[in-house]
Amino acid sequence: MDKYASKLKTKWRAHDEKGMATKLKTAVLGATGYSGLELVRLLGRHSRVEKPLLLRRSSESDDANSLLGFQATNGNGNGNGHSPVTAFSWAALQEHGVELLFLATPHAISRDLVPEALARGLRVVDLSGAWRLKKAEHRAVYGFSDTDAGVAAKLDASAVYGLPELNADSIAGAALIANPGCYATSVILGLAPLLSAGLVDRERGIISDSKSGVSGAGKEPTARTHFVSVADNFSAYSVFGHRHTGEILEQLRLDAADLIFTPHLLPIPRGILSTIYVHLKREMTTGEIQNCFGDFYENKRWVRLYPAARLPEIQFSVHTNYCDLGFCLARDGRRLVVVSCLDNLLKGAAGQAVQNMNLMYGWDESEGLQ
Amino acid sequence: MDKYASKLKTKWRAHDEKGMATKLKTAVLGATGYSGLELVRLLGRHSRVEKPLLLRRSSESDDANSLLGFQATNGNGNGNGHSPVTAFSWAALQEHGVELLFLATPHAISRDLVPEALARGLRVVDLSGAWRLKKAEHRAVYGFSDTDAGVAAKLDASAVYGLPELNADSIAGAALIANPGCYATSVILGLAPLLSAGLVDRERGIISDSKSGVSGAGKEPTARTHFVSVADNFSAYSVFGHRHTGEILEQLRLDAADLIFTPHLLPIPRGILSTIYVHLKREMTTGEIQNCFGDFYENKRWVRLYPAARLPEIQFSVHTNYCDLGFCLARDGRRLVVVSCLDNLLKGAAGQAVQNMNLMYGWDESEGLQ
Amino acid sequence: MDKYASKLKTKWRAHDEKGMATKLKTAVLGATGYSGLELVRLLGRHSRVEKPLLLRRSSESDDANSLLGFQATNGNGNGNGHSPVTAFSWAALQEHGVELLFLATPHAISRDLVPEALARGLRVVDLSGAWRLKKAEHRAVYGFSDTDAGVAAKLDASAVYGLPELNADSIAGAALIANPGCYATSVILGLAPLLSAGLVDRERGIISDSKSGVSGAGKEPTARTHFVSVADNFSAYSVFGHRHTGEILEQLRLDAADLIFTPHLLPIPRGILSTIYVHLKREMTTGEIQNCFGDFYENKRWVRLYPAARLPEIQFSVHTNYCDLGFCLARDGRRLVVVSCLDNLLKGAAGQAVQNMNLMYGWDESEGLQ
Amino acid sequence: MDKYASKLKTKWRAHDEKGMATKLKTAVLGATGYSGLELVRLLGRHSRVEKPLLLRRSSESDDANSLLGFQATNGNGNGNGHSPVTAFSWAALQEHGVELLFLATPHAISRDLVPEALARGLRVVDLSGAWRLKKAEHRAVYGFSDTDAGVAAKLDASAVYGLPELNADSIAGAALIANPGCYATSVILGLAPLLSAGLVDRERGIISDSKSGVSGAGKEPTARTHFVSVADNFSAYSVFGHRHTGEILEQLRLDAADLIFTPHLLPIPRGILSTIYVHLKREMTTGEIQNCFGDFYENKRWVRLYPAARLPEIQFSVHTNYCDLGFCLARDGRRLVVVSCLDNLLKGAAGQAVQNMNLMYGWDESEGLQ
Repeated sequence: MDKYASKLKTKWRAHDEKGMATKLKTAVLGATGYSGLELVRLLGRHSRVEKPLLLRRSSESDDANSLLGFQATNGNGNGNGHSPVTAFSWAALQEHGVELLFLATPHAISRDLVPEALARGLRVVDLSGAWRLKKAEHRAVYGFSDTDAGVAAKLDASAVYGLPELNADSIAGAALIANPGCYATSVILGLAPLLSAGLVDRERGIISDSKSGVSGAGKEPTARTHFVSVADNFSAYSVFGHRHTGEILEQLRLDAADLIFTPHLLPIPRGILSTIYVHLKREMTTGEIQNCFGDFYENKRWVRLYPAARLPEIQFSVHTNYCDLGFCLARDGRRLVVVSCLDNLLKGAAGQAVQNMNLMYGWDESEGLQ
Repeated sequence: MDKYASKLKTKWRAHDEKGMATKLKTAVLGATGYSGLELVRLLGRHSRVEKPLLLRRSSESDDANSLLGFQATNGNGNGNGHSPVTAFSWAALQEHGVELLFLATPHAISRDLVPEALARGLRVVDLSGAWRLKKAEHRAVYGFSDTDAGVAAKLDASAVYGLPELNADSIAGAALIANPGCYATSVILGLAPLLSAGLVDRERGIISDSKSGVSGAGKEPTARTHFVSVADNFSAYSVFGHRHTGEILEQLRLDAADLIFTPHLLPIPRGILSTIYVHLKREMTTGEIQNCFGDFYENKRWVRLYPAARLPEIQFSVHTNYCDLGFCLARDGRRLVVVSCLDNLLKGAAGQAVQNMNLMYGWDESEGLQ
Repeated sequence: MDKYASKLKTKWRAHDEKGMATKLKTAVLGATGYSGLELVRLLGRHSRVEKPLLLRRSSESDDANSLLGFQATNGNGNGNGHSPVTAFSWAALQEHGVELLFLATPHAISRDLVPEALARGLRVVDLSGAWRLKKAEHRAVYGFSDTDAGVAAKLDASAVYGLPELNADSIAGAALIANPGCYATSVILGLAPLLSAGLVDRERGIISDSKSGVSGAGKEPTARTHFVSVADNFSAYSVFGHRHTGEILEQLRLDAADLIFTPHLLPIPRGILSTIYVHLKREMTTGEIQNCFGDFYENKRWVRLYPAARLPEIQFSVHTNYCDLGFCLARDGRRLVVVSCLDNLLKGAAGQAVQNMNLMYGWDESEGLQ
Repeated sequence: MDKYASKLKTKWRAHDEKGMATKLKTAVLGATGYSGLELVRLLGRHSRVEKPLLLRRSSESDDANSLLGFQATNGNGNGNGHSPVTAFSWAALQEHGVELLFLATPHAISRDLVPEALARGLRVVDLSGAWRLKKAEHRAVYGFSDTDAGVAAKLDASAVYGLPELNADSIAGAALIANPGCYATSVILGLAPLLSAGLVDRERGIISDSKSGVSGAGKEPTARTHFVSVADNFSAYSVFGHRHTGEILEQLRLDAADLIFTPHLLPIPRGILSTIYVHLKREMTTGEIQNCFGDFYENKRWVRLYPAARLPEIQFSVHTNYCDLGFCLARDGRRLVVVSCLDNLLKGAAGQAVQNMNLMYGWDESEGLQ
């Protein structure tokens, strides 16, 4: 760990000493996007966290409150109890004593804000793609200039890819968590046990045919997210070119030639299902595959493994933080289809962010996620 | 009829003399909106009409072709055979010899273009709300300034409200057809027989609780038309304030106090269902109500009357030009619920526009609509 | 209170004395229907209640577990922790020491089981329509024979209509709760403040145009609930004849002639929106209406009142136990449109059942419902 | 051709001599299923065909008329003009002079009826899977006993797989057309040009990840087709075991080990999209792939080829008889993703049946399908 990150850590590690005495103070920037809203909802019921400070970028309109659900202003006063969403400033963070900052912002904004946030001693969980990639060739799709070789390069190296099932130890000590992409989470969790055990014949190619609900495309109204474009429709997009490809390759240590990842748009609000195809190096039995997954995810609270005859469906994973995994093995024992399901706004975004926070502060991994 | 309209009529009536010898030349401005696309599709298969000239406003982007369905450019050349969409100009209309202009444009554009179109001897079917209203108090919701008291006032008076089941004779001789609103069509056709026969107790109030699919809200991507806002949702809007109210009142000769019209947004692409509540002046039988509707819509090709035990559903009217009508009478014989269904893009817009064209040129009312 | 009910009460009142020492033992019969599943989910996270005993009728298949979400049987053992669903028997209830029985069963089953359940000293919350109606003329739609004039008649009289916002006191002491219908809850809560204050001109008729998601029609696969019948469709049904009409009339003390209640089927899984039309006896202001609702629902935890310019939407109430209420007043101050939204499986069924349980045992009304 | 088939052919070939003088007489058995309804609609507007005789199996209920759209019985008499659906009998076919019989029936029914139909000199287009498969090992999934080795075996051999783009010549002369499966049509048309040109590296495996709307699962109400099970959901099914696999293998001359075909259920009423993955034997360019498809589908009226930068979507092919094809080639020129879209009820069933009829009688392939 370099000196910069080490200094930050000294600062925020003090927090742990407070123990249960005081609740953690957090802020959510981008509180009105789909992931932001979900995160605010989760933090609002988390026993170790104060109601978060809700922030919007100054360029965003402030009709955000309506989107956090209704705040009764007359009559009987029932509502969700959240404070209004206010414009972001460093001063506001300081004034509220914020210790952990969640960024549910476009990646360019995250790229811009994180260095200063860390320098100010904040810990950060960034839900964008800004800090997920170690290799410059993968970062290229986000259009970051790598000329700011100084601070950013150090942060690229020290940022921890926040997939708890793979990187729990690093997450615990991290200043900056790059919260994984929704598609990437579904693909990586479906493949990691098999690749880790060296069972996959990479030469024959791995395919993830992935399908996502519309909230994954963000809240911006576009021709593509118009109800009439999506309803009764289904389409592939970004074939051979989706931004999450780099994360998957890096986390699974694959080469670009090993994987085809094809995203599709489902006419549903939320949920991802990835149908993943691999060739095994040797003939295997269903029991052996089950053991492979069972060993890898032993004690992993937020992965559910389906029994042999059953496959996950989106309806069973939405509104939960689970990644559900099941598979079918061809009779030849060599060709395997893995099905991976999750809620793109929970395990694929806000839920995983809370899971990361729990690990960062030494709390139960399930806290606030039940 | 004033001199101005009369002169136009002389010009375009010459067309009739050509008989079947040549096909009618039409243009569609706003060919890439939902109604425009549907209109282009209908005109493309109409036996008396040439493939229409497709136009967009200069402010619109030209990705329109993709929206007209696919135009194969390689391989085997299959496609829909439409010409590309080009930018509007009067010169283009003249060059193509256009005789009938369809406007599927925002009302302000229609308000702007129609005077010159008529002056140039074109007949116009306008799908917007620009020319539907006779009373200034109703026009006020569209924000027209009534200072252009000259030409516009004359046109307001001479424009024909293009509801064929009520105004077939005037439509035949019109220079300017104001094609009715989709909601208005469903409500007017559901109430006209009862009101015309003097059966309704207006004192007790008439209510139309109407529900529309999302294409009725237009193609503009907005927070309200985003898939995630609409799917799994349902909401009322513009209560006591929807623009179509004026049309309904004028065509049915009602006062504002007689009617509550409440629009709702359905999570479906297309279709309208209006549930209409009236109190009858006297106790009536189901058979009497059936006769009332049956007499009024005798020989009306595009209205279907449901038998007593059955009610229309949106699924039976979408993708057709029918307005489907059914009703339930309370056991007291005094309270009546009428259900009216149609496809907002066909009988509620483009189909009715073609029906109007058929009447304008003396063709079979069903031509191109089967 | 008669002797029969009084004896039961003696028995179960003993429970309260146990205080927090032990958790309440409950059972859910019909655990695999939509309401049953939701109830099981809610009870599973309720701090005062043990995981419920899950029961099915002997005629039901036992694939129920799959419907309670996934029960991991290999690998890492994650699941929802519920016991399997077993066949109903009185012996099973006794063996598990069940104190409170939830019936999520067809009304004929509830009608059959409740007398014995009460005789055995159980308290019952019945989610069916079996015990909601005091008047024989209203019960007729359920086809109960009123020849069993003995026990059933007594229970009809002593059963408490479990709408907490109206009947909190009676609920607290009840042996048998008739949990309200989903539509009925939305209509009653929308009208009760106005009728209670004597503001409504009943002579001019009250209309509730109500729309429900498909889960309200139950889990039985029928031609009507087939995806292809529902998607892209919308329809009215049971006009002048829906079973919930009696509940609404009785609870609001209306005559049949006062109300038209028209249900419609929405192409969404869950949620109800009722658009309610009333004429006021005198000209009123928006503020007066707000005060009327605000006073009536003061301290009512599960009703949210919307401010003047806004209306509830289904998306804001689903997955919550709230009934959301808003309104629009015509400029004449006499015609009022009230919009009432709720989740038919929560405030309209399982959530309200838990709310009733909370009142029956003197717990916080919000326990387990946040 | 054997003597049996030859005799039939003599009989029906006489029909051709009648030329345009009389319209073809057809019957549709299974007129009330989804494919049957669509077929009736298409035949109703076909210029060479009389309104078809509509038949149901005696075991089916007769509420079928309602499903053919509304038949107005009072008022103004508008409707679709179809005759009522009556119970099937050979006498009825003879009485109406039926020449061509469409079977939109379960495969066991088709297997049962076809021998006699052919023996009676009828030509048959069977939309079920009964006669599609040449190999007994593939037929096994349908559970046919192969003990009826006589007539059935001869028919298995002489039945023509009715995919016009591959088998136009055989279709023209066939007595029995086995209309292809919906999934199979989408996969075969996506792969045929590449396999026919010998471009595919079969050793590395071909994958078709296919997704279908719910009408493909048939009209029977089941737990799986219940709206609440399908909406907001997505799932894979029949992995390594779907019935259409045999057709695909046979028509493309593949071995079982060459192909993984994975069906999924989309929450939409109609439409199929297949995402097909192949490895090419050599590095190729986009232009070469375009030429391969362009040559293969030259003059094929009902296939549309998308230009390089664009992919088909379900919304563009539904309500048409087109199979839309597009592709993306990886930068390495070796990995290819083909996207194939069609309407499962048109090109995947009823539309293709009409296309086959057009070829059988020497009419324009597009007749009745525009």
